[in-house]
Amino acid sequence: MLSIGFIHTTGQALPEHTGGRRRPRAFASTGIDVMNFCSACGNPVSQKIPEGDNMVRFVCATCTVIHYHNPKIVAGCIPEWNDRILLCRRAIEPKSGLWTFPAGFMEIGESTEQAAIRETAEEAQAEVALTSLHSVLSLPHIGQVYLVFIGKMRTERFGAGTESLDVRLFHPSEIPWDQIAFTVVREALRRYVDDLAKGEMTLHVASIPGSLAKPRLEDDRS
Amino acid sequence: MLSIGFIHTTGQALPEHTGGRRRPRAFASTGIDVMNFCSACGNPVSQKIPEGDNMVRFVCATCTVIHYHNPKIVAGCIPEWNDRILLCRRAIEPKSGLWTFPAGFMEIGESTEQAAIRETAEEAQAEVALTSLHSVLSLPHIGQVYLVFIGKMRTERFGAGTESLDVRLFHPSEIPWDQIAFTVVREALRRYVDDLAKGEMTLHVASIPGSLAKPRLEDDRS
Repeated sequence: MLSIGFIHTTGQALPEHTGGRRRPRAFASTGIDVMNFCSACGNPVSQKIPEGDNMVRFVCATCTVIHYHNPKIVAGCIPEWNDRILLCRRAIEPKSGLWTFPAGFMEIGESTEQAAIRETAEEAQAEVALTSLHSVLSLPHIGQVYLVFIGKMRTERFGAGTESLDVRLFHPSEIPWDQIAFTVVREALRRYVDDLAKGEMTLHVASIPGSLAKPRLEDDRS
Repeated sequence: MLSIGFIHTTGQALPEHTGGRRRPRAFASTGIDVMNFCSACGNPVSQKIPEGDNMVRFVCATCTVIHYHNPKIVAGCIPEWNDRILLCRRAIEPKSGLWTFPAGFMEIGESTEQAAIRETAEEAQAEVALTSLHSVLSLPHIGQVYLVFIGKMRTERFGAGTESLDVRLFHPSEIPWDQIAFTVVREALRRYVDDLAKGEMTLHVASIPGSLAKPRLEDDRS
């Protein structure tokens, strides 16, 4: 469900029909989960730092529940067929018309691997056997972590799922770099292509540029 | 904030003072996020499969917002000091009195690496430089993914944070296997010790036993 998931990340987490009621102050610019009312008791929430905590949370003054919002996992797959990889042209906003590998929000009840396989089936109608986890890319400013796997396509069969306008095999030299939907997707693909050139796939753990994060592993110098 | 985070996983997501109001039906046994009322408009939510979706969600009949709940990331670290690793004895429920490596829920605004470093500082008062991501362990039945890093302690300094009763260095042969707090922690430590014996740290991507997940990577046979 890449479509709906991404709505969370683009400042549209609450649709217009939340109307004239009290709007939350935090995270409004990033689209990270916001709340007006307590999901436990239905009374208004406010934002404060709970006792013993050091971060601002949505807290219910009526029933005292503290509502935690945590980063979401986007599971993705770079599907390989011989010397080419499968990319999808997005049929949905944001970035409709631009290219990405299959990726979407992980669901409760599945593993990271199942999520990557499912998204590949949904968006590219392709069946993959995952071979490695290639990158773990944090996007601290929007509370997301991309887990990007590499998968071998079991057959040459693929097609456009409902969220894709087109799905095509690209040789690494043909990747449409100026038409990639998201920076994080471009960054993952760049590392993948670099690894191909070096002849060895390695795990990359990093944050994408423009994020708030600093520490990274010694082995990701890109 | 491991303490509060873990409350979400043990069926206590909604405290008793939600009182006599309508209780949610889904996820009640697992403690995965539940809601009674719409966080956007404050009216009651119900559970149904939205059009074009294939999973049951909390949906608001009044303002039509669909509320997605996704897995949470627990970032952890196995801190190394020479040939020993640092473990914490939990001061909080669940599993108070049992041992774990530092781990806790990732926060919005940080990277996975920052989360692991922060948890190590909070729970073990130790400063680490992360050297590798060691395991990605999904717990589908409770909607969590553990990202476990290995970190080198920068100094021998450590101590019990507010969530720990005790913090100690253990040689791998001394790990208190029958007093480990959680299965996922035991599974991560077991892989770490196996890798030590083989003389090579590798990345492990797997789901913990008892979970709903099946697919896994070829390179995690354990």
